[in-house]
Amino acid sequence: MIAIDAMGGDFAPKAACEGAVEACTKRSNLQVALVGDSAQIEPLIAKAPADVLGRIKIIHTSEVIQGDDHPSVSIRKKKDSSLVVALRMVKEGRADGLVTAGNTGAVAAGGVLILGRLEGIDRPALGIVYPSVSRPVLLLDVGATVHCKPVNLYQFAAMGHIYAQIFEHIDNPEVKLLNIGTEDIKGDEAILSAAEMLKADDDINYCGFVEANELSEGSCDVVVCDGFTGNVMIKFAEGLVDLIKTEFKKEFKEHLLPKLGLPFMLPAVKRFSARIDWTKIGHACLLGVNGTVIKVHGRSRKTQLCYAILGADDFVKRDGLVKIMEAIAKR
Amino acid sequence: MIAIDAMGGDFAPKAACEGAVEACTKRSNLQVALVGDSAQIEPLIAKAPADVLGRIKIIHTSEVIQGDDHPSVSIRKKKDSSLVVALRMVKEGRADGLVTAGNTGAVAAGGVLILGRLEGIDRPALGIVYPSVSRPVLLLDVGATVHCKPVNLYQFAAMGHIYAQIFEHIDNPEVKLLNIGTEDIKGDEAILSAAEMLKADDDINYCGFVEANELSEGSCDVVVCDGFTGNVMIKFAEGLVDLIKTEFKKEFKEHLLPKLGLPFMLPAVKRFSARIDWTKIGHACLLGVNGTVIKVHGRSRKTQLCYAILGADDFVKRDGLVKIMEAIAKR
Repeated sequence: MIAIDAMGGDFAPKAACEGAVEACTKRSNLQVALVGDSAQIEPLIAKAPADVLGRIKIIHTSEVIQGDDHPSVSIRKKKDSSLVVALRMVKEGRADGLVTAGNTGAVAAGGVLILGRLEGIDRPALGIVYPSVSRPVLLLDVGATVHCKPVNLYQFAAMGHIYAQIFEHIDNPEVKLLNIGTEDIKGDEAILSAAEMLKADDDINYCGFVEANELSEGSCDVVVCDGFTGNVMIKFAEGLVDLIKTEFKKEFKEHLLPKLGLPFMLPAVKRFSARIDWTKIGHACLLGVNGTVIKVHGRSRKTQLCYAILGADDFVKRDGLVKIMEAIAKR
Repeated sequence: MIAIDAMGGDFAPKAACEGAVEACTKRSNLQVALVGDSAQIEPLIAKAPADVLGRIKIIHTSEVIQGDDHPSVSIRKKKDSSLVVALRMVKEGRADGLVTAGNTGAVAAGGVLILGRLEGIDRPALGIVYPSVSRPVLLLDVGATVHCKPVNLYQFAAMGHIYAQIFEHIDNPEVKLLNIGTEDIKGDEAILSAAEMLKADDDINYCGFVEANELSEGSCDVVVCDGFTGNVMIKFAEGLVDLIKTEFKKEFKEHLLPKLGLPFMLPAVKRFSARIDWTKIGHACLLGVNGTVIKVHGRSRKTQLCYAILGADDFVKRDGLVKIMEAIAKR
């Protein structure tokens, strides 16, 4: 059973409800719980086939954590919010995992306050898999821990190492720290100290600094940065991809030649778009808390919610959390 | 006379020498000084026409500041390095401005140590003009000041405001602070404090926070962030654009249909590439120091150096520095 924070995100509760219906349609044994205002949720799923409806539970809640709410304060005060109730379901074993498009700060705070941290982990990280030219690159943190101490970056590297081993099946993943130069001297204190900690850890295949322009080439398997930088980076990429799409559409509209060429190009454009499609790959896993939490972008719609729900289900079925806990305990 | 740090960057001194020849060829009254190892420089410009050669001076230096040198230490110790000598030429009025592809940290440190800061400015910022869908967006800092206090971000906003007025001819430029959420509560202490300072300044049209995905839409005229974040962002964009190019080339190579469509598409691709061409627009201006300093990417080649030299010449001819100094003094 995957709990879905139906009230989080810009298109709530529509996106979550439609995403839940689509995920249950795609996967016939999937069970989900839509957590939120039942009066809004019910009509949005009413038209789903009986088989699907039978696998969707509605858990009514009366409060919503907004995008501008203070993360930890709202988790403490809004006890009947969709996010808090859904996190409680995971905590109490009534759900196996959670999917949310809500306030990133509140998701990270709620993960820590309600689910608790994994033993030995100071702060959680949101990890996202970035489709580089040569290999998938796990980028973390993309928004859970805005300010990072050296130990946070070090632990993100350790969790990323484990995640890449378990989910990307890479024996000895190459781990790098994001910096503004690849030379040893560059970067700020926290990054330099984290680099020293990583060099001293024989279990982690630490390969030095990586500059942001090398991410797309896929110069390593795991890239570690603080949550502010990671969040800015993925959002900037999103905007840049939108800009490129807009500009190309303009070309097709305003000029005859490209319009004539369009039928030749369409399959290529589609293949390409599929490869960098944020709606399918854009969900992030909250690592370091005692539960499975998948966070999607606040702007997510049906398709992205659907793939995030399926992703959460995969993570649960593959015992992701247990494997990460075991690996951390062994360290 | 524009001084060029011929030894800075990955393709030194070739890129700087060829860029200087190209710039002097394009602009018939331009005079430049190539600062660096004369034994390496001379053969690289030997084939230039006499008219061009007559406007290129070589200033021999014996040292080079490397990419992995410590910024302020190398400026103090390598007194006969191309960067230090070129900065001294600007300081002493023997050159009107400087173009360099060298170590960003050393350029910023050298700017402060040799040229001095503008009165009232605590730290310099590198500003770059980003081509959004709707308008040019001045992004600063992209690498001069890695860690920023609130006053630094505030002063970057003030300098950005002036730069946009002078060079983009915008009366009342919209200035925003880069953050990981647009709500007032988000972001770190330095950003929140800078926001308060900007709200209290009636001369600056401060319009709140901007998220990185909105940059490409062009939601304002000036975007302010710390040097670490800005540097990561532009480098990530660079890598992403490279990835997109690589993937598209693959499509044309591997599939017949796009290959057939290519002749229809080429003009569109060319127009589009020209719009986001980092080689022409990718140079950054070091704001806040007492001299004209243009920094280009370390990976820059001939064309980018050429456009940066022309950009420096424009800045000088338009009295950029004097106008910025006057505007700061008036505040």
